[in-house]
Amino acid sequence: MGWMRDETGLGKRAANHVPLTPLSHLQRAALVFANRDALVYGTARLTYAQYYRRVTQLAAALVKAGVQPGDVVATILPNIPAQSEAAFGVPACGAVLNTINIRLDVDTIAYILDHGEAKVMLVDSQFLPQAMAAIGQMQGPAPLVIEVPDDQAGVHAIGTQKNYEDFLTTGDPDFAWILPLDEWESLALNYTSGTTGRPKGVVYHHRGAYLMTLGTAMSWEMPTFVRYLQIVPLFHCNGWNHTWMLPALGGTAICCRGITAQAIYDAIADHGATHFGGAPIVLNLLVNAKPDHRRQFDHVVQVFTAGAPPAPATLAAIGKLGFHVKQVYGLTETFGHVTECIWDPAWDTLPEAEQAAIKARQGVGMPMMEDVTVVNDQM
Amino acid sequence: MGWMRDETGLGKRAANHVPLTPLSHLQRAALVFANRDALVYGTARLTYAQYYRRVTQLAAALVKAGVQPGDVVATILPNIPAQSEAAFGVPACGAVLNTINIRLDVDTIAYILDHGEAKVMLVDSQFLPQAMAAIGQMQGPAPLVIEVPDDQAGVHAIGTQKNYEDFLTTGDPDFAWILPLDEWESLALNYTSGTTGRPKGVVYHHRGAYLMTLGTAMSWEMPTFVRYLQIVPLFHCNGWNHTWMLPALGGTAICCRGITAQAIYDAIADHGATHFGGAPIVLNLLVNAKPDHRRQFDHVVQVFTAGAPPAPATLAAIGKLGFHVKQVYGLTETFGHVTECIWDPAWDTLPEAEQAAIKARQGVGMPMMEDVTVVNDQM
Repeated sequence: MGWMRDETGLGKRAANHVPLTPLSHLQRAALVFANRDALVYGTARLTYAQYYRRVTQLAAALVKAGVQPGDVVATILPNIPAQSEAAFGVPACGAVLNTINIRLDVDTIAYILDHGEAKVMLVDSQFLPQAMAAIGQMQGPAPLVIEVPDDQAGVHAIGTQKNYEDFLTTGDPDFAWILPLDEWESLALNYTSGTTGRPKGVVYHHRGAYLMTLGTAMSWEMPTFVRYLQIVPLFHCNGWNHTWMLPALGGTAICCRGITAQAIYDAIADHGATHFGGAPIVLNLLVNAKPDHRRQFDHVVQVFTAGAPPAPATLAAIGKLGFHVKQVYGLTETFGHVTECIWDPAWDTLPEAEQAAIKARQGVGMPMMEDVTVVNDQM
Repeated sequence: MGWMRDETGLGKRAANHVPLTPLSHLQRAALVFANRDALVYGTARLTYAQYYRRVTQLAAALVKAGVQPGDVVATILPNIPAQSEAAFGVPACGAVLNTINIRLDVDTIAYILDHGEAKVMLVDSQFLPQAMAAIGQMQGPAPLVIEVPDDQAGVHAIGTQKNYEDFLTTGDPDFAWILPLDEWESLALNYTSGTTGRPKGVVYHHRGAYLMTLGTAMSWEMPTFVRYLQIVPLFHCNGWNHTWMLPALGGTAICCRGITAQAIYDAIADHGATHFGGAPIVLNLLVNAKPDHRRQFDHVVQVFTAGAPPAPATLAAIGKLGFHVKQVYGLTETFGHVTECIWDPAWDTLPEAEQAAIKARQGVGMPMMEDVTVVNDQM
């Protein structure tokens, strides 16, 4: 009868299916969570309706500037609201987002801009001098540069390039997003740090990022209306894809330009941050914070750490301060975290050192992973 | 440069990608959650290692009985462990699961068996007489019948057909699952209730069920190790796909043959059930339970209701008993629930009647829905 396989022996792909893309999360949030806070940055706030409108304007402005589907749009931005807007606004015009590490040297930035062939680049005013120097070293055509000042942080516009807010006003807020025709289309272009030579480009597809958003929320038990502190740079695996996930939960991203113990404690105490991710160094910052940088808070803060495992002493100390740590592991090539430590409550009674040793492991595949194979190339 | 689209204008599908299927959740759970309880039924327990082994034996036994990929395997079972085992064991040999409503009449069962061309049927001893009568009315070839007794419930084997436990022993516990080659392959065949004529068959694909599992966990905030009470019959949209989701969370399914207030309160008090789904009638059962059928419990129980909205008086009463209700809506054709009521904490201060009126709505698409269009055909 063929309930399963067609004449080619494969399944019958639904002709009218909608490609998986994390862009759909923001489209839904604009309807479902219109009046909830999407982004908080110091005293600034954007509701989902406002976020969606600005994202749409950015997409439309990029099209007006000549960006076509498949073109690359780069950013050199810290985790300020414009970086979240670019996470949706760049792909919303069919373009591919290339977030560049703000700490790279001029030579490496020039290499990435040439290799990725960026057509437009959004640059924070603090990093504009390096960006312009990099453009001066390029061999191919220069991207159009849009300057993003951050007056709240005292980073004012230099004024030699088009201003981000002015650029947004050129975009039609009713622009119809250019969604992927196929879920395997490219969403982001991320360069690895280049520890073994020139940076290598890794391309993320819409499907993979979509699955990361659902699997991460499941694994990290992220509640509806989660309040997520953006410490992981959005130029590291697109902030572990969390920016694309948050609208699915009606969650709030608490933007963070500089990562200091004081900024983190303030985000928890003043903005009710419940979750954040970060390298183990961030835990050390919190444990060793000066007394006047610490703040009281009455909820447990969930932390994803990745990279080198935190030291047992750090884990023991951070737990007493009200933070619950889950260790994960991943790579730029895997969209970020793909393995994790799932805590068994039976381990709660083990000696502290044993608990820390287990916590530092990231032994099992996350729920969105169909399979994990670890190859030991030291053999 | 073509970061996004290939020469056909579409994305480049990863050649080595693994099809999405909920079967992968149980494969992972067998590794990650081997010693945790997968199924609880009265005094019986199955760990994930045991569950996986029995599922594998069922798949292998079906192959040995002549079942081929794309063939249909039917069940007439209440929510006892064998029904959960079939949810994985039937597709694990590439077959399509057809769960038949235990309340159907002989004539309708015969129609479904003929239409679906079931090769094998697993039948609870209580329903075996109707099943055999239906086979007697079939026009096409009869399925092989496997009898599933339930001694714990006092439902003993009649003995005229092959016994389920004996059948399992014919299956190799090391059998390699026959996974879908394509995620659009069929996973389940579900007949609608046939209120407007003969039942109509709805085919679920692996991809859709996989997305339901992730999206539901996100929306319902299901934690790792969730303890889910199986009240929704697995022959209704495959129990809203929850059976396929639970292994992803290392969760425990608390099986339930008969749905009574006493059975539900016992599952909550004795087995720590934290979540269940059901029709509003189930809420009424709980509200109107006799005092000696009620039990004390100290956690909030999360309830998904679907179908007709619960009455405001029911909603007000059930909240005081320790249950938190979320109303959802869906169809057999949509894999189950697809729209939901997302509660805004701002509504907590509204008068009780207004809160109940809002709770009874299911206005917004769930996170795995790319789009929802409601057509009013009364126009």
